[in-house]
Amino acid sequence: MPKRKPIPDPTLPRICMYVRVLESHQEANISSAAIAEAAGVNAAQVRKDLSFFGQFGQPGVGYDVGELQVALKRMLGLDRERNVIIVGAGALGSALIGYPGFEGRGFRIVGIFDSNPAKVGHRLRGYPVLPIDELPEQLAALSAQLGVIAVPQAAAQSVADTLVEAGMTAILNFAPVSLRVPDSVALRNVDLTQHLECLAYYLED
Amino acid sequence: MPKRKPIPDPTLPRICMYVRVLESHQEANISSAAIAEAAGVNAAQVRKDLSFFGQFGQPGVGYDVGELQVALKRMLGLDRERNVIIVGAGALGSALIGYPGFEGRGFRIVGIFDSNPAKVGHRLRGYPVLPIDELPEQLAALSAQLGVIAVPQAAAQSVADTLVEAGMTAILNFAPVSLRVPDSVALRNVDLTQHLECLAYYLED
Repeated sequence: MPKRKPIPDPTLPRICMYVRVLESHQEANISSAAIAEAAGVNAAQVRKDLSFFGQFGQPGVGYDVGELQVALKRMLGLDRERNVIIVGAGALGSALIGYPGFEGRGFRIVGIFDSNPAKVGHRLRGYPVLPIDELPEQLAALSAQLGVIAVPQAAAQSVADTLVEAGMTAILNFAPVSLRVPDSVALRNVDLTQHLECLAYYLED
Repeated sequence: MPKRKPIPDPTLPRICMYVRVLESHQEANISSAAIAEAAGVNAAQVRKDLSFFGQFGQPGVGYDVGELQVALKRMLGLDRERNVIIVGAGALGSALIGYPGFEGRGFRIVGIFDSNPAKVGHRLRGYPVLPIDELPEQLAALSAQLGVIAVPQAAAQSVADTLVEAGMTAILNFAPVSLRVPDSVALRNVDLTQHLECLAYYLED
């Protein structure tokens, strides 16, 4: 675990959301109510979450956007670049390499891996596709700290096992399947369907 | 707005998460504590959220997984198929067509649109790519209720405008940019970087 002040599990996704809200805010100050509205939580929750980390806001003035952003990013460990590898050189892997949000926010893609011999050795958007067997030895050479799983459902657990064995401690999984990893490994699942399900609520019957 | 019981804005994402938790639960009953742990919230919050919709749980037994799942899905409007169109026939659009989570959960992709003449008329994973100009007339023909924006940042607002003008009331946006839509349109943004940012917290300094 990092040496930063621990963030309680349920609070973490909200803090990540606040960082996003601050990034797109145009003015120098922001109220807890404005953060709350943009993040979809209530203002008391925002004040409680932020007070956990110190005294940021000023009554009547709100929070200094720049100062709060720096503080939250430091707490999240976002004050430095992180190297990312992607496993899966298919359509999703290709889409992720091209995703403009990564490089701009300090996530540098340093390697693409695939198990398919037909893909290995070819380039995907300029990146050489490396064989998955070489992942253990490449991981340290690439100084990769984050692993993204972008393979089909059936291959996801075996890729997760390979990443864990190679020493990866933070994994982002795009395959719509529950993965088993040791408690020492941080795993987040991106469930693309969940967003559609939430939207369905707003539809006429 | 649908004729179902309104779900408060901050509650909605949690309800969507509970549906996911129930889908992957193997046993017939589940406790609020187990739902809470899997969803990353506290148990009191789960009980409060669910009690808003009626009496589901039994003290000492917990919730009936099947019954609760049916009830939550009906509330979210997930008890029927929904037709989805994707705008953007690039790598992300292609990845979304191939994403196994959609069809399996009642989201049927019925059309792919693109503005690039080089892509229009070709097939993407079996789907004909239609010209974006035809979107207004095709929308009704395709009975599409959900629109997914999978185009580059610079084109996203104009695609959103086209969707709104054509009468689409629910939009899922993958472009990392804030879109302006009327209050009558439900918009959700998928921010892929946010997940990496949350994971960064767990990394050693």
